[in-house]
Amino acid sequence: MPQLLLTVEDYRKLVDKYDTFLFDCDGVIWLGTTIIEGVKESIAFLKSQNKRVVFVTNNSTISRKEYSKKFAGFGMSISKEEIFSSSHATAVHLKNIVKFSPDKKVFVVGGQGVKDELHLANIRFCNKETSALKKPADYKEFVNDPEVGAVICGLDRDINYAKLSIAHLYLTLNKDCLFIATNNDSTYPVGDFNLPGAGSILSVLETSTKRVPTIVGKPYKTLFDCISADYHIEKSRTIMVGDRLNTDVQFGINSGIDTLIVFTGITSEHEAMDPNSTQATYAMTSFGEISKLA
Amino acid sequence: MPQLLLTVEDYRKLVDKYDTFLFDCDGVIWLGTTIIEGVKESIAFLKSQNKRVVFVTNNSTISRKEYSKKFAGFGMSISKEEIFSSSHATAVHLKNIVKFSPDKKVFVVGGQGVKDELHLANIRFCNKETSALKKPADYKEFVNDPEVGAVICGLDRDINYAKLSIAHLYLTLNKDCLFIATNNDSTYPVGDFNLPGAGSILSVLETSTKRVPTIVGKPYKTLFDCISADYHIEKSRTIMVGDRLNTDVQFGINSGIDTLIVFTGITSEHEAMDPNSTQATYAMTSFGEISKLA
Repeated sequence: MPQLLLTVEDYRKLVDKYDTFLFDCDGVIWLGTTIIEGVKESIAFLKSQNKRVVFVTNNSTISRKEYSKKFAGFGMSISKEEIFSSSHATAVHLKNIVKFSPDKKVFVVGGQGVKDELHLANIRFCNKETSALKKPADYKEFVNDPEVGAVICGLDRDINYAKLSIAHLYLTLNKDCLFIATNNDSTYPVGDFNLPGAGSILSVLETSTKRVPTIVGKPYKTLFDCISADYHIEKSRTIMVGDRLNTDVQFGINSGIDTLIVFTGITSEHEAMDPNSTQATYAMTSFGEISKLA
Repeated sequence: MPQLLLTVEDYRKLVDKYDTFLFDCDGVIWLGTTIIEGVKESIAFLKSQNKRVVFVTNNSTISRKEYSKKFAGFGMSISKEEIFSSSHATAVHLKNIVKFSPDKKVFVVGGQGVKDELHLANIRFCNKETSALKKPADYKEFVNDPEVGAVICGLDRDINYAKLSIAHLYLTLNKDCLFIATNNDSTYPVGDFNLPGAGSILSVLETSTKRVPTIVGKPYKTLFDCISADYHIEKSRTIMVGDRLNTDVQFGINSGIDTLIVFTGITSEHEAMDPNSTQATYAMTSFGEISKLA
């Protein structure tokens, strides 16, 4: 069962024990468009203590730069180097983990965030598709590009059949073509609704190619390996803070680091403390409580 | 092991034993755009013997009327009543099996064939989607239509994120909304390529909604129930003729009827006669051989 942190003394021990704090954002820092009380001050306090903070998000549709602007909108000065989106992680994975050849390029099924981060990492990419590729006969004109050495799939709100078909063809025709997904969340919340997420778009290519992708985002350890490729990380002095057991806490467990579940998002205290749930190391009401140390 | 039919006497016994012959098309009647030798004469012979022939296809993108034109192009006079496409079967399933209420309507993710067959069956449908529904915020404007009582998903080459999202919303918001797939083939052949099929598009909604659809097309028995709803079928006097073990032969097995595998398409004689393969009742080189009886 997670250790429930209740007193200022508990909070102080937590802050003393770790050098690097990895944060999920929605449900921990903000709820949709509203910042959670005390969190801004808590993060400022950590920084004043020379703690490293890294914001880890599965959202691949916007770049770190755009994400930084979202923080600025809450009056928080967070640099892009403090943000680890699944789009950036995917670029790091290609560049630093699998050492993707500069002779090769990537075909992108995904949003602007993926394209922006590939561009920043000097990885060549294409997402050529034409609406003319609608009739079966059009595919007879398909000319394979042997330079395409990876297909990246993330949430793509401009998805169409031609784009999916071309990704499918590269994945099945090009020997050794890598298959990488930014994340595999089946849905994501928009207002009162849930809509199909990256994992649902990804399932088209998983089903058609019968291939298993490398998944970068939480809860997969790939993301932690990417963070470790960018920063020196001492696992025993690093903690993951999140509001979801199956993504944030599981990510910490998969990465071999401690975890803190907060009750400002999806997971209730009742659920977090249930011995049958995924077990976080610590639990607390809100990360905003840390501001009491300031 | 299937009984291998080799002689004219074998063929005559086959024809005598059955009243209704269900046929797969590609690989049995034609190969892409070329008719298989002797098949036209074989079908004509069956008809001259007052046998009923029904052409059964998982292709939902064109209507039976359009399919009839394809036969005409090969000089074969096949009426739409002799064709059972998965699009028509889906309409029959809604109308005659589940008795879909005339007060309700269907949201269609699928091609023109599905819309044409729903129209012929007097089933109301919509496939409203707007390219404006691209930004997350647009979904806050989504107004649920409680009249939508079913989502049909088939191969849709005009797929887009808004259409998938709206289908997802009806399936998750409307109590008792039926989830029906025309078929679940993961790919289909186009020239030298395979492209993502209905089953791959379907997987988006299966993943996002975590719902299990009713699948109409081969190899599922749903299709046989639909055929039985349209025609009087005596199972012991009905046979399924196909070139694929996992769709055509399995469809016959699931429906409790005899099967004939031919070697003019996907399956080789070696594979069909392998005791570890799905077991057809009979096997023969080509259905064109039946023309020797004429």
